Amino acid sequence: LPSEIFEVKSTDLAGRIGRLQTKSGVLETPALLPVIHPVRQTVPISEISKLGFKAVITNAYLTLKNYGDSASIKGIHRIIDFDGVIMTDSGGYQVLEYGDLDVTIEKMAKFQESISTDIAVILDKPTGSKANKSFAKETVKATLKAAKETLSLANRKDILWTGPVQGGVFLDLIRQSAKKTSTLDFDIFALGSPTEVMETYNFQILSSMIMTAKKNLPLNKPLHLFGAGHPLTIPLAIALGCDMFDSASYILFARDDRYLTDAGTVRLKDLRYFPCICRICLSHTPKELLTLEKEERTNILALHNLHVLLKAVTESKEAIHEGRLWEHLGAKARCHPRLWNAFLSLGKYTDFFEEGSLQSKSKAVFFYGPEDFSRPEVLRHRKKLMDNLTFTKKILLILPEDEMRPLYKSPLCLALTAKKTELLENVQICFLSLSFGLIPIEVSDVFPLSQYESSLKPNTTVDFQHFMVEDVIKILEKSKFSNVILVASNTQHRTFASKIRKTVPTRLVKVDRSMSKTVNNIYEILQDLD
Amino acid sequence: LPSEIFEVKSTDLAGRIGRLQTKSGVLETPALLPVIHPVRQTVPISEISKLGFKAVITNAYLTLKNYGDSASIKGIHRIIDFDGVIMTDSGGYQVLEYGDLDVTIEKMAKFQESISTDIAVILDKPTGSKANKSFAKETVKATLKAAKETLSLANRKDILWTGPVQGGVFLDLIRQSAKKTSTLDFDIFALGSPTEVMETYNFQILSSMIMTAKKNLPLNKPLHLFGAGHPLTIPLAIALGCDMFDSASYILFARDDRYLTDAGTVRLKDLRYFPCICRICLSHTPKELLTLEKEERTNILALHNLHVLLKAVTESKEAIHEGRLWEHLGAKARCHPRLWNAFLSLGKYTDFFEEGSLQSKSKAVFFYGPEDFSRPEVLRHRKKLMDNLTFTKKILLILPEDEMRPLYKSPLCLALTAKKTELLENVQICFLSLSFGLIPIEVSDVFPLSQYESSLKPNTTVDFQHFMVEDVIKILEKSKFSNVILVASNTQHRTFASKIRKTVPTRLVKVDRSMSKTVNNIYEILQDLD
Repeated sequence: LPSEIFEVKSTDLAGRIGRLQTKSGVLETPALLPVIHPVRQTVPISEISKLGFKAVITNAYLTLKNYGDSASIKGIHRIIDFDGVIMTDSGGYQVLEYGDLDVTIEKMAKFQESISTDIAVILDKPTGSKANKSFAKETVKATLKAAKETLSLANRKDILWTGPVQGGVFLDLIRQSAKKTSTLDFDIFALGSPTEVMETYNFQILSSMIMTAKKNLPLNKPLHLFGAGHPLTIPLAIALGCDMFDSASYILFARDDRYLTDAGTVRLKDLRYFPCICRICLSHTPKELLTLEKEERTNILALHNLHVLLKAVTESKEAIHEGRLWEHLGAKARCHPRLWNAFLSLGKYTDFFEEGSLQSKSKAVFFYGPEDFSRPEVLRHRKKLMDNLTFTKKILLILPEDEMRPLYKSPLCLALTAKKTELLENVQICFLSLSFGLIPIEVSDVFPLSQYESSLKPNTTVDFQHFMVEDVIKILEKSKFSNVILVASNTQHRTFASKIRKTVPTRLVKVDRSMSKTVNNIYEILQDLD
Repeated sequence: LPSEIFEVKSTDLAGRIGRLQTKSGVLETPALLPVIHPVRQTVPISEISKLGFKAVITNAYLTLKNYGDSASIKGIHRIIDFDGVIMTDSGGYQVLEYGDLDVTIEKMAKFQESISTDIAVILDKPTGSKANKSFAKETVKATLKAAKETLSLANRKDILWTGPVQGGVFLDLIRQSAKKTSTLDFDIFALGSPTEVMETYNFQILSSMIMTAKKNLPLNKPLHLFGAGHPLTIPLAIALGCDMFDSASYILFARDDRYLTDAGTVRLKDLRYFPCICRICLSHTPKELLTLEKEERTNILALHNLHVLLKAVTESKEAIHEGRLWEHLGAKARCHPRLWNAFLSLGKYTDFFEEGSLQSKSKAVFFYGPEDFSRPEVLRHRKKLMDNLTFTKKILLILPEDEMRPLYKSPLCLALTAKKTELLENVQICFLSLSFGLIPIEVSDVFPLSQYESSLKPNTTVDFQHFMVEDVIKILEKSKFSNVILVASNTQHRTFASKIRKTVPTRLVKVDRSMSKTVNNIYEILQDLD
């Protein structure tokens, strides 16, 4: 194996496209690993492989229970008949469901090596999301102990080991667990058991859990999220920096006659049309599927569900590639109010997202509403405005936003700067963008300050955001501006003027229908102030 | 043919699922009809049919030019080799592109009958969207004249005739054209040439055009929208009441190496991953496709594009079936700020949408932000509140919204009504919902007043909407309430109280952590007012 087991190829927000080296080949991440039952798998693994899944996860504990130590003769790849990347879980799920198991940490470590898995997981003690704090603490401690013991036993250098972070919904425990686990020599880290949190649509809690783990783990290693197989969770988890997922949801939902859509799940009996173009949906109707025997129906539904999960992953990957993950997440978040609430609260992580977001993208940035002020691009611009730009002129002239890009080519700006340049010598021209706030003319063509499309227009009724007023006041306080001229296109600017006027004397120029009249009004004030 | 050629089966907003009887079978609407070239069709029609398209459109004028009158011997079904429903356009598009044609209105009427088309279109004079008003007027007049002439010539009773509405982007002309055309005996109406409006993403203008036509045409006949083949336009057009579309976009985009996604178009060379699960995308990578010969690549891309268009239609159909068209449209609108702007301006049509929206649905209504106050359900509730409900009690007690559903089971309400019922005799209890406004307890379990999920919570920073305050003031003005008690959970309610206080004396009760303290505070005020 090469020295760099995991390589990050591109990033957007905290999401990334990576390449994980395993002994069975390279796995491109983010990747969803369907759960394969080592004995009772009903959906043929050949079908799953054909769909494009390069990696699966299966259960080492169940393999041991069913095949015993002879499993090591065949090896896990021949047992489940898959030549791609295989991850094995070690029974943690069974611990969570049924209590302590009849195997030791040592046994599960050695067994996973003996069956030649590609990615192994230590026998952890999952917290679950219903645990009280003292039990949660115990699981963190027990998992850490198991982690150390397992790593001390691990012999094969060609198997990647996964270290699970526990703590349930207790963020302080997750932080502690992540910090301690990150000191150990794992190839992959994992966040344990948020399944119940996802099932109850507590996407805000899920975000906090993931971000707490993410911020306390090394960024150069992959983060696996256990049991995340819902089309609504996947884009969010990817944006928050999860690189791998495993899920049995495709078959669990199918057994329950639940059909996955881009927007969630629907009961098969409630569907009249399949809103999908996978081969399953193009060759059946919901009515037809309902008439099939339970087992056949379950497997067909499961295959469709796998298509939807695959789509959720590739859509997010393409969004990372295009630098459109924020937009993608925003559109997806409109699938459920609770996901929307999670999206609205992402502002807490903008600092972290900013590091992953490119300085320049080939596509324009989209603004729909105030929620988009949490975009990393807005934070980045505001930081630059506050920390990197210095203003030396005496007069601050604020022009309204314009459809014309770059902004410095706005008709008003061109008309104003075409003549009487002597009047403008001591004037700093800025634009007031409803998306970014104050944009100095000198940087107005730097991405994305002239590469954005926004629903927020000066003629819409949206109010100026608090941050925009604050930014301007801060700039006025630290600069030497003696006067502000605010060129305004509607009444909302009056409120803005009245707020900044308290810091520096501010003159308001109403935008007139006649461009030359507006320009002359500005000239007059400039002459007056001269 | 049965007497009812078009039957509406279900509706949501202005969208509907219908059944159109033709001599080649029933066509379920909304339906997208791929454009088939009568001579140079490169994507095999058998592939298009296999995908599930039950109807196509082809060009009668090009058929005449290429096959002459002998086309009538074979008939259009054998010429293009399709046994589903065939609509023929009559050359209007060619008129728009190349000016008047070398055929007469009469010729095109008789020719379409002779080739046994299922759905015929008169030889109209499309306005186009770049026309000036006097030219636009002319096209309306010429199209009407052609309509009358064609209908007087039509012989076959088994062919459906389509009457196009013209007017370009001039809404008054569209209104006039629709009104006059609707007096003629057409089976189907159509709206002409919004293609350029769509190509420039002027979705707000498109909405106005469609709604103007729709409101002035009979609702019991289908409305066809010419040239609407963009995945972003389809859900909007369907929600606004368009039943049929035709489009060559699948092949035009493909020739330009443009790949359709759920969210728009991407250049093939810019794609790294196919965010799609159609059979084309599962068996190719963007890189592979780029290495193919132009013609093969174009046809493969075109087939993928057809999948995406089909999905856009079936998704909308399923959304109508589920009563979730508003939610669906809102999610789709997050694909582009201009589509979002069109979504934001739908409030203008809520009255019209309300007629199409069911009184009760099996699914909860979702609220994300103020844009959702334009939902027909909100308008319907507010109308009821104003017109159908009378209040006879002396005191209006407004309780905060709660997560508990139905609302009357909110813990505070239960605690309050559990004892001291004598104090409540003269009290009208209402809930203040951030989604619907005032909800009287008596109707609080009527759909959707307890069947909604909302991102708007009393503890979020969203401000009370203007309409909610206005509604309460109107009710206070027309009722005999002598006092209001506003039980409030945060500071925003103070603003609310200060506004309604001007009409009727209002007492504010802060929600205390201790439920019994809150209840006692309410009792105290009630005793005080007694």
